[in-house]
Amino acid sequence: MTKVKFLPFDEEYEVFEGETLFDVALRAGIHINASCGGAGSCKRCKVRLISGEVKGEILEGQYYKACATYPLTDVVVEVPLVAILDKTTLYRTVKRRAKSLEISGVEPIFPPIREVFLKLKEPTIEENTSDLTRLKDGLAKQGISEPEIPLEVLRKVPYALRQKNFEAGAYVYQNPGTSKNYLIDITAEPIDPFLGVAIDIGTTTLQVEVVDLRKGETLGFASDYNPQIKYGDDVITRIEFCKKKEGIEILSKVLKEKLVLLIKEALGAKGRLEEVRLISLAANTVMTHLFLELEPRYLREYPYVPAATEFPVFRAKDLGFKGVDSISQIIPCKASYVGGDIVAGVVASKMCEEAPITLFIDLGTNGELVVGNQDFLVCAACSAGPAFEGGGIKHGMRATLGAIESVSIDPYTYEPMVATIGKVKPLGLCGSGILSLLASLFRAGLIDKSGKIKKDLSHPRIREGAEGWEYVVVFKEEAQTDVDIVFTEADIDNVIRAKAAIFAGCQVLVESVGLYLKDIEKVYLAGTFGNYIDIEDAISIGLLPDLERDRFFFLGNTSLAGARLALLSQERFVKMKEVAKGMTHFELSNHPGYMDAYVAALFLPHTDESLFPTIKINSI
Amino acid sequence: MTKVKFLPFDEEYEVFEGETLFDVALRAGIHINASCGGAGSCKRCKVRLISGEVKGEILEGQYYKACATYPLTDVVVEVPLVAILDKTTLYRTVKRRAKSLEISGVEPIFPPIREVFLKLKEPTIEENTSDLTRLKDGLAKQGISEPEIPLEVLRKVPYALRQKNFEAGAYVYQNPGTSKNYLIDITAEPIDPFLGVAIDIGTTTLQVEVVDLRKGETLGFASDYNPQIKYGDDVITRIEFCKKKEGIEILSKVLKEKLVLLIKEALGAKGRLEEVRLISLAANTVMTHLFLELEPRYLREYPYVPAATEFPVFRAKDLGFKGVDSISQIIPCKASYVGGDIVAGVVASKMCEEAPITLFIDLGTNGELVVGNQDFLVCAACSAGPAFEGGGIKHGMRATLGAIESVSIDPYTYEPMVATIGKVKPLGLCGSGILSLLASLFRAGLIDKSGKIKKDLSHPRIREGAEGWEYVVVFKEEAQTDVDIVFTEADIDNVIRAKAAIFAGCQVLVESVGLYLKDIEKVYLAGTFGNYIDIEDAISIGLLPDLERDRFFFLGNTSLAGARLALLSQERFVKMKEVAKGMTHFELSNHPGYMDAYVAALFLPHTDESLFPTIKINSI
Repeated sequence: MTKVKFLPFDEEYEVFEGETLFDVALRAGIHINASCGGAGSCKRCKVRLISGEVKGEILEGQYYKACATYPLTDVVVEVPLVAILDKTTLYRTVKRRAKSLEISGVEPIFPPIREVFLKLKEPTIEENTSDLTRLKDGLAKQGISEPEIPLEVLRKVPYALRQKNFEAGAYVYQNPGTSKNYLIDITAEPIDPFLGVAIDIGTTTLQVEVVDLRKGETLGFASDYNPQIKYGDDVITRIEFCKKKEGIEILSKVLKEKLVLLIKEALGAKGRLEEVRLISLAANTVMTHLFLELEPRYLREYPYVPAATEFPVFRAKDLGFKGVDSISQIIPCKASYVGGDIVAGVVASKMCEEAPITLFIDLGTNGELVVGNQDFLVCAACSAGPAFEGGGIKHGMRATLGAIESVSIDPYTYEPMVATIGKVKPLGLCGSGILSLLASLFRAGLIDKSGKIKKDLSHPRIREGAEGWEYVVVFKEEAQTDVDIVFTEADIDNVIRAKAAIFAGCQVLVESVGLYLKDIEKVYLAGTFGNYIDIEDAISIGLLPDLERDRFFFLGNTSLAGARLALLSQERFVKMKEVAKGMTHFELSNHPGYMDAYVAALFLPHTDESLFPTIKINSI
Repeated sequence: MTKVKFLPFDEEYEVFEGETLFDVALRAGIHINASCGGAGSCKRCKVRLISGEVKGEILEGQYYKACATYPLTDVVVEVPLVAILDKTTLYRTVKRRAKSLEISGVEPIFPPIREVFLKLKEPTIEENTSDLTRLKDGLAKQGISEPEIPLEVLRKVPYALRQKNFEAGAYVYQNPGTSKNYLIDITAEPIDPFLGVAIDIGTTTLQVEVVDLRKGETLGFASDYNPQIKYGDDVITRIEFCKKKEGIEILSKVLKEKLVLLIKEALGAKGRLEEVRLISLAANTVMTHLFLELEPRYLREYPYVPAATEFPVFRAKDLGFKGVDSISQIIPCKASYVGGDIVAGVVASKMCEEAPITLFIDLGTNGELVVGNQDFLVCAACSAGPAFEGGGIKHGMRATLGAIESVSIDPYTYEPMVATIGKVKPLGLCGSGILSLLASLFRAGLIDKSGKIKKDLSHPRIREGAEGWEYVVVFKEEAQTDVDIVFTEADIDNVIRAKAAIFAGCQVLVESVGLYLKDIEKVYLAGTFGNYIDIEDAISIGLLPDLERDRFFFLGNTSLAGARLALLSQERFVKMKEVAKGMTHFELSNHPGYMDAYVAALFLPHTDESLFPTIKINSI
């Protein structure tokens, strides 16, 4: 593996396929000036080649443009340090992404749909009870009593039984946690393919996975934006939209139509829509309500009562899934803002069955928090506001092409190193970029503990704009925008409030069970955003608790993973019902200590510095 | 009450409102010549007024036309007896209709749909579980656990609970005999009207009754022919029709469309279709299969296996009842030819709960027989063929306008007294007319024990026709037909075979439980035809067993009555399930003694005359 050493630092860093010197430095946390996001236009990311071969763009002499230069052999380059007074005081960011925790598939040990082979006695004139009675008797011998039989299946029974002399396969859905059975099909030949679909309905994105119910294998995947976005970016505006006539019907319809398209896409050539036998669906409580066309308004009206948190088993056609006729099971929710996605995640992560005390965090507009282990589970939601999704931030944007996802600021020159999604000229700041920027500003000493910009620093990037003081992240010349991309004190305030809401939630929740933050043995970060969080950044601004970094794990889409588990194991779905029921929910808005904790967290990293022992407060 | 005495007989007979002298004589079993069916055209029904006042048509002197003469006071008339040699030898028919047994309505003591008043605690921020959980907890406190809740009802829950501060009425259908509950509605205001519909699907006619589920009162009724008739008169031709592509869908569709129309008609202004909350439906096994679109072919293929004899509870919309969304319960069947109509009848008649050994007979194309009491029940179906419905009889017809429903033949003159439905000129012979005619022919000595016409009797009504020997019931001059209405030896043979099938069935069934026919303490005649049977006629030809006449009861439409009971009492519906399960069914075609009994019954009244001690065999 090719390696790079960035002088004056000693460490060598591996080069992954396709990486430029800029990419390696970014990953290593080594600051190289760059304001074009890696697009190659600013020409400021120059490094000097000391040894080794590269293929790339020479700026002058031995100076190469880092964002356009690829190492061919092991190389040593020098990063021009404009103003290093003392190497030992150089502030260097340690980049830390959380380790991934693989959520492995289960063996389909006890799938919700049992395949029961029946060898029934053929009727005679002496014993000519009905086909249905014969079938039920056969099922009863295999422990399946009083199955519900839909009319369409009942209509098939006489043919199915006579095709192979009263030998047939019965497909029985056993409603997990109840004694209710449903005969979903009866056929002389085994059903093939035998398909299930796991669905995650996020407020922003939809994910669909097709699974072979016999082997547990994933056969296909599809994903797209939630089409409800055009009726409202976040859950609040969608709940408001539902107050319009037929609002909820519209939101539900566009969602289901899109889901059917995604199922088709994920199926590909592996099967047809009508061959899907089981659907498991996980979503937050608002999305679950909108999907089922349940009135969502009381979710956000005091005292925040959901219409339902546990759901019957539905037939897909009753749900309005056109062309699908499978059984549909919906992962239960806990409360208005702790949904089935979280319940699915708690079970998928196994935190509820292991000894370590774990903090499970799903970060988005709302931060959902679960603390516990095999012995107890408590949960809460904190309203972080949209800052982490770029909302309420002057140049905030979704994490799409051109969004700044990482910023590092030279603590001496105050010049930023900016990386964008897609390495194109910057358009704005997405969540991870905002987090990274705030951490960098604080680390570089450009803002104080309360998030105020230090106005006495004379620098072209620090100025007073129309909306107060701001830091210029990218001047318009290097951006895709007509104006400079700035980060204002108001933006900073928004982010601090968001992180304080989350941190205070964690703290209050942990303390509510008589523990301290330091007692947390594992931190599980769920959801896409969790993957892009830099742990060091998040801790340094006081968003995440200051724990040993190897306690942090990134879990990926635990909502989809949970939905998939429920497809393959009845026992897992039962566990989700138990978790939804057994978990203790705290309504933070009503918790006496929450407001105090929140106010205390409105500093960087926190009013109580002893909570963040590893964070060095820059006093330059 | 006005009375009539018909000399030379001594008895006096009451006159019911609107009755002519002819009507009274007909009812009394007194023979008056008449071949026009009571239409007034033959002018042969003359009687001589001895005393009293009448309003009517004088034929000559004191002679009045009986069919057009109404008694105004008590009257005495003389019947001209053409050839009475000895009054004491005069054969006089005793007319006996079975007594009606009133099937009374039940109090809705435990109706399948319970109205549960809920006064739930209003949610608070400390206790903000979902509406559904709150509702379920409230129901559980009233003994209703884990109700199934359709999505449409779930959607109503948030509104219903909030309309009156979490006080509401829940409507719970408790699936009789199971522990399954369905929440069918939840409302702040009580459902009003609270409607149920009882349906009887006969092969020929449909009957629909609308019932107030709270009070148990009947609110409306409607009836019409089964529209499947145009695809086949009887069940066999309809089963054959189902072999055509979409045959069964067509039969089911026309039936349901007609039923919806009848429900609307029966509802009148009392309610709307969507206000019907519960439907109970009784039908024979073939009709039940066609209604549900279950493959009927195996019902008539050896070994006669129904697709189903017990049925899940359906939602009307799943059944294809357009505009109706009630729970629909179907009375269970016993076997391919002992259906839910019979099960309904057994329970409605209470024979299964009383001490007397009872023979329950439903006569039609098939004769369904049940024998038993509170301790045991056995049943069988015998294929009588269509003779009792006018099928296979040269001048047979349905029991509609112009059908001869009663015939009495003067044993001296061989002249008939004919009465038609609607008192119009005769068109043909319906079931009761056929029965009456055969009994009369036998009684008058015109046919022998084997049903052969006595060819040596020289009389214009006895002649050899194109199809063999025949008796002219009505000459074409007095009929609506172009030809004489005759009754042929082939017709007689058909009727004898039909009655033999029924009688042999009764005999074998009774003997199968170690009893004799004379042990039968009550005979229940169900169905419309039963009402028009003259008991004396039926016994004299050997159709019904020769028991004391007061043991016979007419029950009316017990199928509809049973469906109605199941609407109002969960316990009654459970009883029907128990009867359907517990009753022992004999497959007569497979019974070793049946063929012998059948052959022995192919005589009038029977080979074994000791079985019919009260029947005097005319030996003139």
